[in-house]
Amino acid sequence: MQLSKSAGTDYQIKNEHDLKSWVDNYKTYTKNGHCASYIPALAQANPSHLGIVIVGPDGTTIRAGDSEIPFTMQSISKVISFLCACQYHGISRMLEWVDVEPTGDAFNSIVRLEMNKPGKPFNPMINAGAINVAGMLPGKTPSEKIDSLLSFLSEIIDRKPEINMEVFQSEWETAYRNRALAFYLKEMGYLNGEVDDILEVYLKQCSIEIHTKDLAQMGLILALDGYHPFRKKQILSKELTRIAKALMLTCGMYNASGKFAAFVGVPAKSGVSGGILASIPPRGRNLTENLPFNQGCGIGIYGPSIDDVGNSTAGVMLLQHIVKEWDFTIF
Amino acid sequence: MQLSKSAGTDYQIKNEHDLKSWVDNYKTYTKNGHCASYIPALAQANPSHLGIVIVGPDGTTIRAGDSEIPFTMQSISKVISFLCACQYHGISRMLEWVDVEPTGDAFNSIVRLEMNKPGKPFNPMINAGAINVAGMLPGKTPSEKIDSLLSFLSEIIDRKPEINMEVFQSEWETAYRNRALAFYLKEMGYLNGEVDDILEVYLKQCSIEIHTKDLAQMGLILALDGYHPFRKKQILSKELTRIAKALMLTCGMYNASGKFAAFVGVPAKSGVSGGILASIPPRGRNLTENLPFNQGCGIGIYGPSIDDVGNSTAGVMLLQHIVKEWDFTIF
Amino acid sequence: MQLSKSAGTDYQIKNEHDLKSWVDNYKTYTKNGHCASYIPALAQANPSHLGIVIVGPDGTTIRAGDSEIPFTMQSISKVISFLCACQYHGISRMLEWVDVEPTGDAFNSIVRLEMNKPGKPFNPMINAGAINVAGMLPGKTPSEKIDSLLSFLSEIIDRKPEINMEVFQSEWETAYRNRALAFYLKEMGYLNGEVDDILEVYLKQCSIEIHTKDLAQMGLILALDGYHPFRKKQILSKELTRIAKALMLTCGMYNASGKFAAFVGVPAKSGVSGGILASIPPRGRNLTENLPFNQGCGIGIYGPSIDDVGNSTAGVMLLQHIVKEWDFTIF
Amino acid sequence: MQLSKSAGTDYQIKNEHDLKSWVDNYKTYTKNGHCASYIPALAQANPSHLGIVIVGPDGTTIRAGDSEIPFTMQSISKVISFLCACQYHGISRMLEWVDVEPTGDAFNSIVRLEMNKPGKPFNPMINAGAINVAGMLPGKTPSEKIDSLLSFLSEIIDRKPEINMEVFQSEWETAYRNRALAFYLKEMGYLNGEVDDILEVYLKQCSIEIHTKDLAQMGLILALDGYHPFRKKQILSKELTRIAKALMLTCGMYNASGKFAAFVGVPAKSGVSGGILASIPPRGRNLTENLPFNQGCGIGIYGPSIDDVGNSTAGVMLLQHIVKEWDFTIF
Repeated sequence: MQLSKSAGTDYQIKNEHDLKSWVDNYKTYTKNGHCASYIPALAQANPSHLGIVIVGPDGTTIRAGDSEIPFTMQSISKVISFLCACQYHGISRMLEWVDVEPTGDAFNSIVRLEMNKPGKPFNPMINAGAINVAGMLPGKTPSEKIDSLLSFLSEIIDRKPEINMEVFQSEWETAYRNRALAFYLKEMGYLNGEVDDILEVYLKQCSIEIHTKDLAQMGLILALDGYHPFRKKQILSKELTRIAKALMLTCGMYNASGKFAAFVGVPAKSGVSGGILASIPPRGRNLTENLPFNQGCGIGIYGPSIDDVGNSTAGVMLLQHIVKEWDFTIF
Repeated sequence: MQLSKSAGTDYQIKNEHDLKSWVDNYKTYTKNGHCASYIPALAQANPSHLGIVIVGPDGTTIRAGDSEIPFTMQSISKVISFLCACQYHGISRMLEWVDVEPTGDAFNSIVRLEMNKPGKPFNPMINAGAINVAGMLPGKTPSEKIDSLLSFLSEIIDRKPEINMEVFQSEWETAYRNRALAFYLKEMGYLNGEVDDILEVYLKQCSIEIHTKDLAQMGLILALDGYHPFRKKQILSKELTRIAKALMLTCGMYNASGKFAAFVGVPAKSGVSGGILASIPPRGRNLTENLPFNQGCGIGIYGPSIDDVGNSTAGVMLLQHIVKEWDFTIF
Repeated sequence: MQLSKSAGTDYQIKNEHDLKSWVDNYKTYTKNGHCASYIPALAQANPSHLGIVIVGPDGTTIRAGDSEIPFTMQSISKVISFLCACQYHGISRMLEWVDVEPTGDAFNSIVRLEMNKPGKPFNPMINAGAINVAGMLPGKTPSEKIDSLLSFLSEIIDRKPEINMEVFQSEWETAYRNRALAFYLKEMGYLNGEVDDILEVYLKQCSIEIHTKDLAQMGLILALDGYHPFRKKQILSKELTRIAKALMLTCGMYNASGKFAAFVGVPAKSGVSGGILASIPPRGRNLTENLPFNQGCGIGIYGPSIDDVGNSTAGVMLLQHIVKEWDFTIF
Repeated sequence: MQLSKSAGTDYQIKNEHDLKSWVDNYKTYTKNGHCASYIPALAQANPSHLGIVIVGPDGTTIRAGDSEIPFTMQSISKVISFLCACQYHGISRMLEWVDVEPTGDAFNSIVRLEMNKPGKPFNPMINAGAINVAGMLPGKTPSEKIDSLLSFLSEIIDRKPEINMEVFQSEWETAYRNRALAFYLKEMGYLNGEVDDILEVYLKQCSIEIHTKDLAQMGLILALDGYHPFRKKQILSKELTRIAKALMLTCGMYNASGKFAAFVGVPAKSGVSGGILASIPPRGRNLTENLPFNQGCGIGIYGPSIDDVGNSTAGVMLLQHIVKEWDFTIF
């Protein structure tokens, strides 16, 4: 499946051409949603934006649309913090703190948290679980914990990202529900620290500013079972990346995770800022001739107009189209 | 990846040898569970049984342990009835009747059924959803519906299976919870017929008697996106089989579905009789040299000693071992 | 507080005059509701009807409005069947089957039934509890049980009432939710018999046809702690009537029980047919001069136009007015 | 029912003698519970204590046991703060903030708070409702609000009580669940102020130190519909006291409120410090000859050993005995 240089270039041009036309086509669906309004700073995004980057293991990169706009990770950070905490503590230790079962509830539900006696969150992709995981990041103080996470992330995306302090401040001031969840976790013995400290970590991790390119690279490294193809180094354990991809598939797209698994069928994680991280493992059939992504790829999407459950409206449709065209499903 | 005749035979012998030793090893774990007792007829199974069959696309078949014991499909039938109803009505019509979202609840919960206003079941792998689906099988009378299902199934497994009437009778007499669910569905307008009729269909489908070989063949055809490799015929639509595999992955192993996805990572469906149907799609990496299952396979397991959530204790461990040894994960 | 004959007559005329004007006034509020539609036979009632009878311990009876229309007991029968079963089995035995705690849920909820592990219904005024109680009525067959209840009731109202078979038939055919509840109780071991048998009893008890006069007499005897003032006989134990009145106060008016206790403040039980049974115990203060109901009374109301929670719209307002005018509150 | 001076004295001696023997008898039941441990300062109470004071409208006061030990109001303060906020804002305004429906849930549940869309607490006797009410106390700052409450309370008990700052501090540091509730209320728009401010008010009101005598006087004034018999002044509206008594009856004894209504049958409110406030309205029957409490009374009990749901073990039994002996039930 080795690509010849010239063939690569030609096909890359064709693939990028296709991608641009698909982005143009799905951009009209940005009208079906709206930017997240509960965090004031997010409401300022341009709802008509839609951008994408795809990166393959040989470095082939194609992009289309508004792929250069920076945005905050929001819930996508839940994947990274879970990886970081697991790498530090080991998976079995982390499973004492958080379960890995999907739930049919809204991503910020308090109801089910309490019902899952004795208070252990269902999975690290819901807010309760992610707050719990934030408390387990390496380091004693909030700044040590957030630094650990940023360092961990910089190993993946090859640069140290910044925290958007305006977004963080906006989240900090309105995080009533997350504070309710955190105090409830504290009450139940499932918070490793003080509420204010851990919420600071959690809300800062949500406010890490990234680009679609970064998401694509994360997705690629997950696709390659933790192998960084450009630095030629195994940076995450194979077992851990597979758990992460399984969690993304079963719980990654908020309350539409089941539908997304059934009708798209790739591990992905969305955030209310409109980002989507998707990871396409190498496939064994129906390969598209000369497609530089047959041996896996990562996809980063940005489309801040989100639907009722919190996923980028146009982004999900664009991703579904690509997966269908290039037969990227894992099923 | 074409196998030479002799190589195939040699490796087959080695693979089957491995399989036998693994079965012997995991058989001790049958002690960690017990046979389902709520259906009297199931309680008579031999809890120490553990058997397996694996079938590849070229017909290579390896087996080990108690692989010749017949058993009833129970919840595994939910996959087949969903496929059958979707093939008849189309997927979009079926989605009006049943959702495809996973739920963190017990498989026979009434609580969540009611909470998911206005009464639409979460997915076809929970009892409420499966009863609903049974009502949508082609045919007007219960016997027409069950005949439709048996015919549909015979297309997949190349023989018309029988209904174990003793098991059916036993289930019929003790199906209080299923009757509660069915009447609730009826109240909410989500039951396509009369309660007694549809329960007859549902409980008969649960009582269809099969062998591990049949499950393996089902799993193989799902793995090949609906293509029957021996009859060389596309018998199910590609789209439909992918939805089925996604449902199996997100909801197929009862309340341990999330853990199974994270730590095993293949589409599978279990039943309280101790059966497990697993489908291994073709993979694009980490192929085991000369393994006749690199282009996908189906696995059927029987181990009637089940754990608290309803999955075969030894069966799950055996499957996890195989998936790890041969790197069968879809992630 | 003994009434002179002539004074009694004069005041009776005045009181009845007042009552008629109040009924006329509140009759307009029948427009705020509608007749129960889920049982077809109930939908045929005249929604503009409003009638009332009040009976005092000396036999003084005043009436106004449409007080002669027969109607079925519906949920009001829950009080009588609970009394009957407790009289037969003793209170402590009955408490093993059903609790006496109020619940904030809808009267026909399945959600909470299951949550109150291990399946014991919250109280005998919700459907689950009442179905459970129906199974505990004296007698082996459904007809023996319903005969026991009719005999018990005839001791209170001095005549043997009939079952409206048209209403029963209508309920029987549409009782999907009640069947769901009954099968769930059966599953949990909280149904003393077969579902069909006990539902027959329960739905027949709901279909007992009575008049406002009967409800008033029931309320009077409860007010007098089980003493029948006309037959001069203690027909129910004091302890039992007090439990019944407490249950009526905490759970008698469906999901408006708390509001009714706070803003009306007398033990009452309503039914979806529009009936209300109210019991006014003797009071120790703020007595209205020469009111023949100062030593307690019973009130029967009929107003088939019901509100969202199931209470007679005009009936509740009329009752609230009377309680306020004559200071009947127990608080 | 006027008591002659001498008769009063004689009977008072007899009544007090009876009371002492009952206290001695029920004191042994303090062993069935334990002091509240979740607030460290409460755990220091002497679990074998049991004391009671009863006050009648003519000032007759009888007492027995450990009736002089000061203790904090805890949940009993919920009655007072509700009265205070209603007196200031009017009842209808307060009903926009908090409902008056009983709930079958634990007193500190988060589950049901969220389910009662859109977030309005069920009633002012559960923590969520009481936190909400604390925010509605007159005054802008926390200290103004708590001063309003203390002034209001001093009108009832004729002295200005103190806040036990050690208990407050202990509660403040461990109030994780209450903070979770408060942040959730804030999120839903049902908190009138900032979380820290209102929690300070709420936890200070819980920490008001009182004696059984104070509770008895509160209960008496509620029994007399807001009339202060010693200052001969109407200090609370009749309507308001009746709502308060109804709330106490339906929701006052935590999750045993229904059982307490059925088997004791008087308005009462308990706290986890072991206090019980009971209000006995004037009765119209079964009067005990020469009992100075026939025209109503207030009862204050202290017994810090509490049961699983939070009520004083011996206190409830003692109260039940008294209500039965003197036929104090309101039913």
